[in-house]
Amino acid sequence: MDTILRINMSGKNGPEIKKESMGDYAGLGGRGLTSMIIAREVPPTCHPLGEDNKLVIAPGMLSGSAAAISGRMSVGCKSPLTGGIKESNSGGQPAQVLARLGYAAIVLEGRPENDDLYKIFINKDGVKIEADNSLKMLPNYDLVEKMKNEHGDKICCISIGPAGEMKMSAASIAFTDMELRPSRHAGRGGIGAVMGSKHVKAIVLDDTGMSTREPKEPEKFKEANKLFTEGLKKHPVTGEGLPAYGTNVLANIINEAGAYPTNNFQKGQFEGTSKISGETLAELETERGGMATHGCHRGCVIRCSGIFHDKDGKFLTKQPEYETVWAHGANCGIDDLDSIAMMDFMDDNYGLDTIEMGATIAVAMEAGLAEFGDAEAAIKLLKEVGEGTPLGRILGNGAAITARAYGIERAPVVKGQAMPAYDPRAVQGIGVTYATSTMGADHTSGYAIATNVLKVGGYVDPLKEDGQIDLSRNLQIATAAIDSTGMCLFIAFAILDQPETFQALIDLLNSFYGLSMTADDVTELGKKILKAEREFNAKAGFTSKHDRLPDYFKKEPVAPHNVTFTVKDEELDKVFNW
Amino acid sequence: MDTILRINMSGKNGPEIKKESMGDYAGLGGRGLTSMIIAREVPPTCHPLGEDNKLVIAPGMLSGSAAAISGRMSVGCKSPLTGGIKESNSGGQPAQVLARLGYAAIVLEGRPENDDLYKIFINKDGVKIEADNSLKMLPNYDLVEKMKNEHGDKICCISIGPAGEMKMSAASIAFTDMELRPSRHAGRGGIGAVMGSKHVKAIVLDDTGMSTREPKEPEKFKEANKLFTEGLKKHPVTGEGLPAYGTNVLANIINEAGAYPTNNFQKGQFEGTSKISGETLAELETERGGMATHGCHRGCVIRCSGIFHDKDGKFLTKQPEYETVWAHGANCGIDDLDSIAMMDFMDDNYGLDTIEMGATIAVAMEAGLAEFGDAEAAIKLLKEVGEGTPLGRILGNGAAITARAYGIERAPVVKGQAMPAYDPRAVQGIGVTYATSTMGADHTSGYAIATNVLKVGGYVDPLKEDGQIDLSRNLQIATAAIDSTGMCLFIAFAILDQPETFQALIDLLNSFYGLSMTADDVTELGKKILKAEREFNAKAGFTSKHDRLPDYFKKEPVAPHNVTFTVKDEELDKVFNW
Repeated sequence: MDTILRINMSGKNGPEIKKESMGDYAGLGGRGLTSMIIAREVPPTCHPLGEDNKLVIAPGMLSGSAAAISGRMSVGCKSPLTGGIKESNSGGQPAQVLARLGYAAIVLEGRPENDDLYKIFINKDGVKIEADNSLKMLPNYDLVEKMKNEHGDKICCISIGPAGEMKMSAASIAFTDMELRPSRHAGRGGIGAVMGSKHVKAIVLDDTGMSTREPKEPEKFKEANKLFTEGLKKHPVTGEGLPAYGTNVLANIINEAGAYPTNNFQKGQFEGTSKISGETLAELETERGGMATHGCHRGCVIRCSGIFHDKDGKFLTKQPEYETVWAHGANCGIDDLDSIAMMDFMDDNYGLDTIEMGATIAVAMEAGLAEFGDAEAAIKLLKEVGEGTPLGRILGNGAAITARAYGIERAPVVKGQAMPAYDPRAVQGIGVTYATSTMGADHTSGYAIATNVLKVGGYVDPLKEDGQIDLSRNLQIATAAIDSTGMCLFIAFAILDQPETFQALIDLLNSFYGLSMTADDVTELGKKILKAEREFNAKAGFTSKHDRLPDYFKKEPVAPHNVTFTVKDEELDKVFNW
Repeated sequence: MDTILRINMSGKNGPEIKKESMGDYAGLGGRGLTSMIIAREVPPTCHPLGEDNKLVIAPGMLSGSAAAISGRMSVGCKSPLTGGIKESNSGGQPAQVLARLGYAAIVLEGRPENDDLYKIFINKDGVKIEADNSLKMLPNYDLVEKMKNEHGDKICCISIGPAGEMKMSAASIAFTDMELRPSRHAGRGGIGAVMGSKHVKAIVLDDTGMSTREPKEPEKFKEANKLFTEGLKKHPVTGEGLPAYGTNVLANIINEAGAYPTNNFQKGQFEGTSKISGETLAELETERGGMATHGCHRGCVIRCSGIFHDKDGKFLTKQPEYETVWAHGANCGIDDLDSIAMMDFMDDNYGLDTIEMGATIAVAMEAGLAEFGDAEAAIKLLKEVGEGTPLGRILGNGAAITARAYGIERAPVVKGQAMPAYDPRAVQGIGVTYATSTMGADHTSGYAIATNVLKVGGYVDPLKEDGQIDLSRNLQIATAAIDSTGMCLFIAFAILDQPETFQALIDLLNSFYGLSMTADDVTELGKKILKAEREFNAKAGFTSKHDRLPDYFKKEPVAPHNVTFTVKDEELDKVFNW
């Protein structure tokens, strides 16, 4: 995994393939690698869909090794949704496979002059890229089926759906799971539109003949991996809650905390929560012959995913995540799991971010395009997006654009990106993350819910401003580092609470690379990444004024706690003072 | 004219009317007054359509007096289109009438909780405001007809059409002309959406019983007015070109200069120019019994407007301005004056900025929604806007949003606002103004065409970067001051070339107010306004990165000169160093 694969789509005689050694980027992986490449090589004021933007797809530092749960793939670019730097990551198989094929990153550069749509195939023998216009406007599931027919079932795929081809700002990039289904997505920031702007429909990977990446110190590595796995298994969140009920175990918890945004963030509790909770979802999945506990990639030891069957017992979609159930559920006043699962499938198939789409449909409901709670209408709206109708063009570009089109003030966005499933008034720490993250409103970039609600890594009262800045800062730093390892972010619960598990993670990295990093070095890596991202954003025109929640979160209290977001602007400006 | 009329639309028992003395705002008028009120009273990060934004409608310092051509009305707010401060001004009757009624400004504040639409009536007896939902979604022409039926024909009107009610970012505010037609518009920046967000449909003014504002020193004033008028009449631009052919006299000139943006700024010359030039337009107007020389308000001595009849000799619209003929014409590849005039009427009737709409339709054409040159298709697109269809919602929010919705890079906008009728590559001075103006891309805020092309106020080679910064700086300062007087900006040609005419303007102000201002004081006023506007924008999140043209103007040369925009970023940052 010491090669960077660059494909220049602007080449006069078609795309140009170039393999490079890591050079200055040596030692980086995942978000660390994507953000460093973007920060160094992309002009910050360029158009996100223009020839100067780059799309970087990078497995984490431990991806492709035997390390448990190391299958995250990072994707970086300048975001069409936020206008700032973006890293969005996904589970699924491709990270492990791409790493085993020896690539630290694929960098898509330039933009074709013609209208051709391209497919890239990578295996042990090398890289092929060819125009294949028969793929145009194929939804992700059909596309993967076609790839399977062409290349067999040993492959995995990275692809965009119609939304990416239409260069919509809510377009995701799909990654196939263990069943070779395009069900895992790097969703946020419209990165699918950037892949679309490069005219790349699919990257097909086959690592047949390649082997697992070997650590420098195999014994130490094996031991560390054992301790690490044990740590994950013994923590109540990663060992019990997540495997049993999936991420949606949070629905009841967050609803109880009064932080479950309902009807476009009008309320903090949803009457229908019990109908769509993780517990109900798991029961339904089991009852219909689906699966309530399942991994999204080989090597996962948490297995927070699952498989959702429809009423007839047929596969409909993977287990919808907590964020998806919230976005298409509570946030739109919808309490029907079948409708929510259908929208999860549609998003995956069209290639759309479920968070952005749920937030968008809720804004559309506030604009009067449908009633809150009307699942059928919500599905219709989503269909417009996949079909690229004018209304679909509005919705497919996200919550902020939809609010703009319909003159709605209440758009729950920061830097143009929709807030996820936690009301920042009822959990002030996540509000700090939403406001200040380099990524726009993003829960994963500093998951304060852990400490504000789940009491992981200590406890900071979610309703007060005290301690939230330090909390968010520390989490943002740690997250930037974790996002570089290829590890699933859910390891954070165990490493925050269990020092020996954190040490095991460091030992995994050290023994794999033959390093002697300390916890401080990990922190330094996180800071270095955030600094590069902040600098990119500043050069793109972002100021402290962009590190703010929309005004109405400071003015409109949210029930049941009847609180507003009270962290002061001057405090927010201290998040990156370290 | 020493009263500020404040109407708080948030009042619990309906709108609250309050009259205030000028206080700290004493001595200000027009843009000086609107920008100072916005800069001081509106939180820069507020939502443009939220309760904290204010809409300030202010006649100029000399409006309502006998001073020639003093009928401009300024409208200020935080702009929904740019997100920054906005002043947009218009001719028509209301400035003179409002000034004679004694009001230096109407300030609309707050936002009603209910869905009612309001009408404001102001005459010598005071101010009345009442809900009148029968006005909902009336186009401007029908609305004014209704107002005439209710209040007689001594009135004048300030109103919004359906676009403003739908809170579209391209929505204008209409001002009636001498014939009581809503044909003059403060077009730019989506100010109509702000009026719509306040739920104010119309402000009807009747100055019966009021008299012309009297100067402090009547004899000096009379003499100054005489010299001023003579100055305007003897300058070739204001005394010959504009009266004979209207503003569209520029079409041939700018086309000749290779700066006439064609097909969404793809080229700098349009084959069909002779079919839509000012000369052709004037001939057609005269031939059909319209009028080629006409004022937009009483007291105008330039009379650059006119009246356009359709093929049957019936009134269709006022003489379309140069910018409109360009926007709906050359920029969309359309060379048919009847179609252009029809779109001018539709824009006026729906309440839309013709520049933004022409630029938007051209972007839509580039996106493949219609062919360049297809006038019928362009009219259909415009109809969608008036009807508020989903496609209309996209287009009605301007060129930048349309480009975003359709994934198009080539959106000719700065700070979200579409460029007017001069290619910034072929006229580098206007490029400096577009880039750096506090208003977004705006020719009127520093009309470098004068010196770059028309050789008024000296000559600076339009194709070179030398001298453009100084030129734009000086024009922006002078313009901010002129925009405060109530004077039509076209006086600039005469005052730039004829020192005695500039002195006559200063004498008009001094004799009216009993002051002893010098030319330096006028410059200071301009600087003070720009400084306040810049500070507001900085607090709203604007940086030097926003004072730039889109990248592609620096990369794609425009024919026939095959030039790119070459003024360096560091130079642009010097515009406001004085």
